[in-house]
Order: sequence, then structure tokens, then C-alpha cells
Amino acid sequence: MKVTIVGVGLIGGSMAIDIKAVYPNAVVSGIDLDKNNLQKAMELHVIDQKGDFQSLFEEDIVIIAIPVDASVNILPKVLDQVGDSTIVIDTGSTKADICNVLRDHPKRRNFLAAHPIAGTEFSGAQAALANLFRNKTNIICEVEKTAFTLQERALELFQKLGMRIRYMDPASHDKHIAFVSHLSHISSFMLGKTVIDEEKNERDIFDMAGSGFESTVRLAKSSPAMWTPIFKQNKDNVIHSLDKYIENLVQFKRLMEQDDFESLYHEMNDTNHIKTILNGMK
Amino acid sequence: MKVTIVGVGLIGGSMAIDIKAVYPNAVVSGIDLDKNNLQKAMELHVIDQKGDFQSLFEEDIVIIAIPVDASVNILPKVLDQVGDSTIVIDTGSTKADICNVLRDHPKRRNFLAAHPIAGTEFSGAQAALANLFRNKTNIICEVEKTAFTLQERALELFQKLGMRIRYMDPASHDKHIAFVSHLSHISSFMLGKTVIDEEKNERDIFDMAGSGFESTVRLAKSSPAMWTPIFKQNKDNVIHSLDKYIENLVQFKRLMEQDDFESLYHEMNDTNHIKTILNGMK
Repeated sequence: MKVTIVGVGLIGGSMAIDIKAVYPNAVVSGIDLDKNNLQKAMELHVIDQKGDFQSLFEEDIVIIAIPVDASVNILPKVLDQVGDSTIVIDTGSTKADICNVLRDHPKRRNFLAAHPIAGTEFSGAQAALANLFRNKTNIICEVEKTAFTLQERALELFQKLGMRIRYMDPASHDKHIAFVSHLSHISSFMLGKTVIDEEKNERDIFDMAGSGFESTVRLAKSSPAMWTPIFKQNKDNVIHSLDKYIENLVQFKRLMEQDDFESLYHEMNDTNHIKTILNGMK
Repeated sequence: MKVTIVGVGLIGGSMAIDIKAVYPNAVVSGIDLDKNNLQKAMELHVIDQKGDFQSLFEEDIVIIAIPVDASVNILPKVLDQVGDSTIVIDTGSTKADICNVLRDHPKRRNFLAAHPIAGTEFSGAQAALANLFRNKTNIICEVEKTAFTLQERALELFQKLGMRIRYMDPASHDKHIAFVSHLSHISSFMLGKTVIDEEKNERDIFDMAGSGFESTVRLAKSSPAMWTPIFKQNKDNVIHSLDKYIENLVQFKRLMEQDDFESLYHEMNDTNHIKTILNGMK
């Protein structure tokens, strides 16, 4: 099996590692704008060899794992290049724009829009991990637009990587993912900023920060090059989720100002319900 | 050595476990308003026996690990009971009120105000963990007001539990801890609330939540009975930190509305500096 990964970072690199493990005969090529990253991917044996756009027509699977603005630009050209029996899988965190851009592409049937919900706050080939996708959810949009045999090949891959599949339309995906993923990143980035701003002259203060702070601010380590285009593409949904979040924070502050600590208790107690929800995620 | 733990929950219970490990001759008694929790602590061998307030004068160490409003009420009475050579250590997350309440107590020299920065989002005796305090920071306030020999006993205990000590005045402690701990809990609780509110009719949506959401919302599982009094006691500092946080979120939203994604990139890139800060915490 011949596979090309476009963007050999955290997601693309982790895909490459698992593909080589589950398909021992696979030859995995990598394409990356960042020559140093591509070299690193070679040295770490994340990929087998460097690939190029000109030979995409020979590939069985092409995986796109680059920032979502670059995907929108490059995917029509990738589809132009591929052969009739190549499946091109996008893995970005927004799905409406990409599905829209490819809607009338003559090779739309060679494309599968996916979003594997997996990752860490790190980036680049050196962040790639084996088994990153095991027991994670993979959301597939507009599955009916992909050729049946190519769907099968992609689903076999996802199954071998240990993912569970959910089908969803692109608009619903982008609306819900704003709340359960994109908003978390903003809350974390702004928490980090708030504390750094306040405490920048107090070098010892971070000694006071415990595992709670560390966990809440973890996503503020994420790559701005990846996240800026996501916020741009999903602007309306993200602004809506931010509005709701800010409203709740203002309400919390108001209860404190009014010394209404009983209501505050109930707010937090109700939110403890997140325990059950998160347990359901396991 | 005789030790009584008042409040055999996550913090008090974890202290008990470690004390029994590092002082094999210690007899650890537990006091808890919640009879079921006390029974559980006995069954789990977190404590050796049930204690009572009447015999506190015999103890070498008394550790107070209860909600901060209860500490302010109970600590003057505990100090009334203890012997001349008992050290009473408070472990709460706010320090100004407690130091203020005990300022003129005749046995102020028997008291040490501490805040071990350690914990998880769980509570009760069954949440107690061995080695919870290892390599964690313990903030001590007004150390000069504690009798020297009793300071020594407490510091030996903290050292054996593996903690590093920082000295700070109570007002500075409360000001900084609002940013690096209390604010994280609010950001997490309100993130949980926002997502639950929005998605309550969408039972499958949490399948879409990944490890990022889980990490950011983890603190929303915390005990409201513990956190409500903390927010009450540290009201002014917490409101100040919330104001700054809300300002930053509103500013982030404004940049999105203005399509100023370049500034958004720079905001996030600057905040990536949190990586270095968190590495410094290790």
C-alpha cells in the first residue's frame, strides 16, 4: 500500500507511525513545506521517504494534516493530481469550508472529510506518537459523497487505528466543535495571558501554581499557526460560544459581588454533572 | 508521635497516609463531621482511630484540612484545647482571614498557617493518595509568629513529605493564589456550564470532546462545598482576577469580530511563553 502524508506534524506523523505498524507493507511518503520538519520526520523514521505532489496519482491513500487554511487552498490541487482509486482524507478541525470548496470538484468522490479528535498541545514531527488515535472519536462528514470502495478503504484504516466513527453534517460538526474544542483553547490561552500579564514581575509566583493551573492552561501551549486559521474558518460559531462563556463568567462575578454564595454553590454543584459526562467519554 | 487530622478528606487523608509512612510510630486520629466519611477513613486505614476535640492537648501535631469557612470558626477553639507543645497546622487555600482571626489568640505561637499546593479534583477519604505532596510547594505565612521548636517540628514533617517551602505574607498569598489557582477553577466551572447549557439536548455531542476539553474542564469536578467558602473569603482578589480574565476574553472576541487574525496569532504566540513557565514549575 502506498500512502502519502501531507503535513508530517503531530497528526500526520502519528498517522504515519500507526499506518506503518498496522500495514507492514505500506510505503509512507511525507510532504512538508518545512524542510527541517521533513528531515526530522525522516530521521525519526516517522515516514519512509520524501514524497512529492507529482506522484500522488500512484497513491492508495493521501492524508492531509496541515493548518485548515492551507487545506482549503491545497486540497483542490491535490484532488486534481490523484488517480481514480486514490482516497484523499482531510483531518482538519473545521469541516464546513473544506466541504464547500470541494463540493463541485470533479473528483469529489475521491475525498473523505474527517476529523480525528485526538492530539496533544505539541506540534511537529517530533510530537508524533504511536496509538494517538486508539479509542478516539473520528467524525466523518458527507460520507455519502465519497465513492463506496474508497470509503471502505478509509474505514478499514480508521478501524485498524482503533478509532470509533461518528457521522455528522459539516455545519453541525463546526457548531458543536466550537463548544467542545475551540472554546477550550481560547479559555486556556486567555487564562495563560491573564496570569502572565498579572504576574510578569513576580518570577517566583509560578511556584504557587499547582496541577490544577497546569491542567487548565495546558492548551495555551498549542500552536498559533494551527489555531488561528481554525478560529478564522469557524468564526461565527466560535464567537457564539465565546459570548455564552463570557456571559457565564460575568454572571458568576455578579453573584460574587452580590454576596450570593448560595447561588454560586448551586452553579458549581450543577456543573459537577460534568463528571458523569466525562466518564461517559471513556 | 500523636497526630490528629481534622477533616479526613483529600488533603487531610493524604497527609495521614504519608505521616503513617514516614513516622512508623505515629498514631493518627481523625475527626470529621461526616460520620460516613470518618468510617470510610477507618476502613481504608487512612487513619488509625477516631479522635476527639477533648484530647487535643495530648497531641504533637494537629492538622486542619476542612473548608476555609469552617477553619475560621473552629481554629480558635482548637487552639484553646491544645497543649503548650502542640503544633496546629492549617492547610486551607486562603490565608488572610485565618491569620487575622488568630492574631491575638493567646496560643498564636502554637499555630502555623500553611497552604500545601497539592490536590486533585476529587474529595473525601477515598480520594486520599500516598505521596500527594511530594515535590509540591507549601506556602507558609507569618512563620515568625510560630514558636521556634514547633516550626521545626512542622518543617521536619513537610520535609519528610517531600515538599519545598516558600514563605509569604498572607495578603500576598491570597492575591497571587487568586490568579494561579482560584481563577483556574472558575474558568473551568464556567466552561463546563457553558458546554452543558448549550449541548444538554445533544447527548452524543460529548463524543466529540477530546483530551483537550477534558483537561480544561477537569477542575469543574471539584467540590462546591470546599470552593464556595474560598471564593467568599478571597472575594476581592478573585473578582479582580475575573475582571482581568473577562477583559482578555472580550478583547479576543473583538479581534475575531474585526477579522484581525494577525493580532490573534500574536496574542496566542506570546502566551505560548507559558511553556517555559510551566517547565520551570517541574
